[in-house]
Amino acid sequence: MQRVLDRLRGSGALGRVMKSADRTLVAVGNGVSIEPDAFNDDPYVDLVVPTVPPQPACGGIDAQQTRGTARGTREVCLGPANAIVGGQRLGIIAGPCSVEDRQQLLEVAHAVKEAGAIGLRGGAFKPRTNPYSFQGLGEPALELLAEAREATGLAVVTEVLSVDQTDLVARYADVLQIGARNMHNSSLLAAAGKTGKPILLKRGWSATLQEMLQAAEYIIREGDSDVILCERGIRTFESYVRHTLALAVVPAVKQRSPLPIIVDPSHGTGVAVWVPPLSKAAVACGADGLLIEVHPHPEKAQTDGEQSLNIPQFQRLMSDLQTLAPAVGRAL
Amino acid sequence: MQRVLDRLRGSGALGRVMKSADRTLVAVGNGVSIEPDAFNDDPYVDLVVPTVPPQPACGGIDAQQTRGTARGTREVCLGPANAIVGGQRLGIIAGPCSVEDRQQLLEVAHAVKEAGAIGLRGGAFKPRTNPYSFQGLGEPALELLAEAREATGLAVVTEVLSVDQTDLVARYADVLQIGARNMHNSSLLAAAGKTGKPILLKRGWSATLQEMLQAAEYIIREGDSDVILCERGIRTFESYVRHTLALAVVPAVKQRSPLPIIVDPSHGTGVAVWVPPLSKAAVACGADGLLIEVHPHPEKAQTDGEQSLNIPQFQRLMSDLQTLAPAVGRAL
Amino acid sequence: MQRVLDRLRGSGALGRVMKSADRTLVAVGNGVSIEPDAFNDDPYVDLVVPTVPPQPACGGIDAQQTRGTARGTREVCLGPANAIVGGQRLGIIAGPCSVEDRQQLLEVAHAVKEAGAIGLRGGAFKPRTNPYSFQGLGEPALELLAEAREATGLAVVTEVLSVDQTDLVARYADVLQIGARNMHNSSLLAAAGKTGKPILLKRGWSATLQEMLQAAEYIIREGDSDVILCERGIRTFESYVRHTLALAVVPAVKQRSPLPIIVDPSHGTGVAVWVPPLSKAAVACGADGLLIEVHPHPEKAQTDGEQSLNIPQFQRLMSDLQTLAPAVGRAL
Amino acid sequence: MQRVLDRLRGSGALGRVMKSADRTLVAVGNGVSIEPDAFNDDPYVDLVVPTVPPQPACGGIDAQQTRGTARGTREVCLGPANAIVGGQRLGIIAGPCSVEDRQQLLEVAHAVKEAGAIGLRGGAFKPRTNPYSFQGLGEPALELLAEAREATGLAVVTEVLSVDQTDLVARYADVLQIGARNMHNSSLLAAAGKTGKPILLKRGWSATLQEMLQAAEYIIREGDSDVILCERGIRTFESYVRHTLALAVVPAVKQRSPLPIIVDPSHGTGVAVWVPPLSKAAVACGADGLLIEVHPHPEKAQTDGEQSLNIPQFQRLMSDLQTLAPAVGRAL
Repeated sequence: MQRVLDRLRGSGALGRVMKSADRTLVAVGNGVSIEPDAFNDDPYVDLVVPTVPPQPACGGIDAQQTRGTARGTREVCLGPANAIVGGQRLGIIAGPCSVEDRQQLLEVAHAVKEAGAIGLRGGAFKPRTNPYSFQGLGEPALELLAEAREATGLAVVTEVLSVDQTDLVARYADVLQIGARNMHNSSLLAAAGKTGKPILLKRGWSATLQEMLQAAEYIIREGDSDVILCERGIRTFESYVRHTLALAVVPAVKQRSPLPIIVDPSHGTGVAVWVPPLSKAAVACGADGLLIEVHPHPEKAQTDGEQSLNIPQFQRLMSDLQTLAPAVGRAL
Repeated sequence: MQRVLDRLRGSGALGRVMKSADRTLVAVGNGVSIEPDAFNDDPYVDLVVPTVPPQPACGGIDAQQTRGTARGTREVCLGPANAIVGGQRLGIIAGPCSVEDRQQLLEVAHAVKEAGAIGLRGGAFKPRTNPYSFQGLGEPALELLAEAREATGLAVVTEVLSVDQTDLVARYADVLQIGARNMHNSSLLAAAGKTGKPILLKRGWSATLQEMLQAAEYIIREGDSDVILCERGIRTFESYVRHTLALAVVPAVKQRSPLPIIVDPSHGTGVAVWVPPLSKAAVACGADGLLIEVHPHPEKAQTDGEQSLNIPQFQRLMSDLQTLAPAVGRAL
Repeated sequence: MQRVLDRLRGSGALGRVMKSADRTLVAVGNGVSIEPDAFNDDPYVDLVVPTVPPQPACGGIDAQQTRGTARGTREVCLGPANAIVGGQRLGIIAGPCSVEDRQQLLEVAHAVKEAGAIGLRGGAFKPRTNPYSFQGLGEPALELLAEAREATGLAVVTEVLSVDQTDLVARYADVLQIGARNMHNSSLLAAAGKTGKPILLKRGWSATLQEMLQAAEYIIREGDSDVILCERGIRTFESYVRHTLALAVVPAVKQRSPLPIIVDPSHGTGVAVWVPPLSKAAVACGADGLLIEVHPHPEKAQTDGEQSLNIPQFQRLMSDLQTLAPAVGRAL
Repeated sequence: MQRVLDRLRGSGALGRVMKSADRTLVAVGNGVSIEPDAFNDDPYVDLVVPTVPPQPACGGIDAQQTRGTARGTREVCLGPANAIVGGQRLGIIAGPCSVEDRQQLLEVAHAVKEAGAIGLRGGAFKPRTNPYSFQGLGEPALELLAEAREATGLAVVTEVLSVDQTDLVARYADVLQIGARNMHNSSLLAAAGKTGKPILLKRGWSATLQEMLQAAEYIIREGDSDVILCERGIRTFESYVRHTLALAVVPAVKQRSPLPIIVDPSHGTGVAVWVPPLSKAAVACGADGLLIEVHPHPEKAQTDGEQSLNIPQFQRLMSDLQTLAPAVGRAL
């Protein structure tokens, strides 16, 4: 370990060496002066992560003052003023799984804005395991999302499924979401990175922590995109939930990376009644925000109805979080 | 589903039928009048769980007033007055992984008592995967635990590894712990149940929720033992943690069973610095208490040092929980 | 179940209804007359799979005579005459993980051809978790693969990583491989399907059997591409292997689909010495072929050296398979 | 690595040092002269396994001649002459999941004997997750098993569930089985080891390879019991099978230990039609035998009917194995 540290410093980098749970050592260079493959010949070094500079990503905010965590989580500005993830205020992004029609979207958008959300989620292109399932409205949904932004001031967060969609989606969205199915899709990661937009990167459902950080690196090295990580549950033998929400990843990311991390308890459980308790758990262990599915009529939703909160449920959760956040040093 | 419900009611039971995540139906009888095998011929009924009566397990406390959750979590009295798990106050059980010597144990016991714990954990018999690892001090450790109870008023919680140890351990301990390795050991479950002592039942590291509830049933049907369930992490592909703490099990248990459930973030992460954030997460999503490893000098601990808090770390966590608990309707 | 069957037949399809391990019913239409969403309103039907017609995909071969399995596995012709996967003869595809240089590739190609392989694998574009790892030679590797085909008559199998590479790769390759990381990348699946080339589809390392079949459906519905499925191990808690090779998927696919399935024991174990025994196991349980990494000097390989056979090891394995194949009704 | 090897040799042992898949080093002493805790202070040594001496466990057989594998698998004699597991001949143990009645047991026993089995399995005490499920006939089943041994010459293999059953079961059985649920039950392992009978040790469904070997060590160090390891599938996210049969463990055990290893494809798949292909796979990758559930009328079986072969299916499998075995250097 000392050997790696010495060599890291010898190469001019302000380094950090960590001993991970599985005994592999990870050298983290602190700046641009370290070559990514400087340790390729060292069997104990799995990955060299050039550190993302922790300066704030949007002007007018003094990162030194508002930073929520000791290590200096990077503040990612979603677009609209004050729509920030990674600061002391929790960043709540909410909305329907799929954009279904104008009325549905606007109703949800106004409601979540009023309850304190900073971002509006809504799928225009849906990744579906079954090719014959509803695949989303496409560009018309993007237009509705833009309209909802105008009406509410919410930042628009929506998923991009393929390289050829990135420009289209980037024209409408404030934040491009890379879904769990695409976390290992390196060409999509690179294309998203090239847009310069902030990227919401969801952890693959069987991706390790290190793989998620490496996927972020695929985005970051294309430019200076901001990346927000998102834990959304992993695949295990458990069957009473859709996925197993692995919350230890939150403090683990805080230890390894300046990137903010939010939690998606909707996919992370798959059951609406468990979304509020797991949302609170995520905030309590340090998540920088939440990604929550809200639908005016979950029982009629075209996708993911069983895990969507209705509007009163979401309002109640936000009210509970308002009480909880100060108890863990955050605000809503 | 209606068919099962009708039949359940037809049999005179006040029943409940649930649709679990994996589409199996579970009929829950509400009293003694339903036969355990009444539905053996119904392919959609996996398990008939005679409901544990939700009356308080120790006198002098009015369950109706102190009950923390809507469904009526059963209050389990650990032995000493006011040492209750399942009420509105969180039940914190803390102490070393293994009892190593008198000074270590008493130092920890006094410290955790003062910080607000109600129970003292400490292993006398250690289940070790490697037969040549330290196996615990045995009966002398039980004597030290009893001495620490005299000195502090803490309830003693310690693991029993085999049927022939149950009487010995029950003579000294207030609560018998069944470890994760033994959750499927039905003869040990039955023997523990026969002691009449409260049982702390840890979830096996690859046990499903239903299997944990069935293991509790093995204990309960031997008498009227109280059972406290404990989530301590499951085995997954993740390698940055020792186990993956699956917190959705907390609200899931609340939905299915009146038994209280606590969380062990020490085994559930395996890394001391992640114990505080995951402790807060557990409380935030409704856990009735915590089981935490504390050692005066973790770096010298014979077992599990890397996941033990030292005393100042535990004090800080308890102070944080004192702030957090009221924000989720609990007290410490 | 009878109800679903009746309805299936009522819709004019020659149907089949299966009861899967997890109690969901799957209706399989047998022809084009069944609408994919005909059962969307039936909660017990998860997926309607329009059956792939079992006629041979390349002329001159009488499928009725050479068919290896009772249910009629579809024979997929890789391109060159007699290079068939899904018939009675095992289809062995072998070669280096990455194409490194001309000499390496030709040496391996001649050796595996002589030993009985029908296809040459070799990566031109490498999907790497770490963005700073070797990413493949790109188009020059494709040219070398085409040269090796000329020299040996082997079919060229190589991976395509992104939609914009499909045309380029399809110009050189006989079979396009979709890697495990991209099994859920539906736009890539569709783009590959549009090339009309046979597709080798690797199972995602945490994909269910049903998800793999649905991914195949994304390819097939774009045209009449042939698809060869490939089991390459799943992610579990096991750490002595790179992945856990889940061989029960072989007979399970045979029961559900006419698509041929091969096994990749190189990724499926990650350890060269275990490739031969697991290759034999795969053949013994009915796999239609193998995908094996072979390198002239595994210790110098740029990628996956630890799981590559050297040439004499591969020759010995092929000789062993020659003995084994007739014992399970196959030939090499 | 060299350092550990030097130290191992320095301590007088004929040692072996292995680099496992996860980079931990394991020192294997070759004899009794190495202390189990000799490497406790070495962070790279996880386990010291005193090697089981590879001499044959029952007289009259020359291990040097009949040994099936290069490393010298230990031959375990089940009791009756010629009932050996670990030699060149495959050891097939078959019979019903539970002993249900005299006629059922004798019919199966005669049939499997005639088909070439060497052992009769049959549960007298059944470990059930649900306490209200059928728990086995108890001692009367043991008497029936003994009667079947008299009638057929088969060795009797039956499970022991608790320490207080070991003497009873050992009076009737030739081989004591430790089930998957009890693999971590160290007191039961020790009690079984004290009987001196051969032990069939099933891998826990989420036990690592190393944990299985350590469990065997708990048995072996109590005396000179022979241990037969048994792979029976692990718990993963897969749902089309009951468990995921992880066959790479077979060559992995051969590399690490002289203990024979057999495979249970009945529990390992949970589906009768997949038992034959996975049985062949197990034999093809080097398993020393199989443990197979056979019932005269699986549709009427009280336990595990869906994974039991009927008698004609078992006969067909044995006939297939007779063809397969010589192709991998074994005999039936």
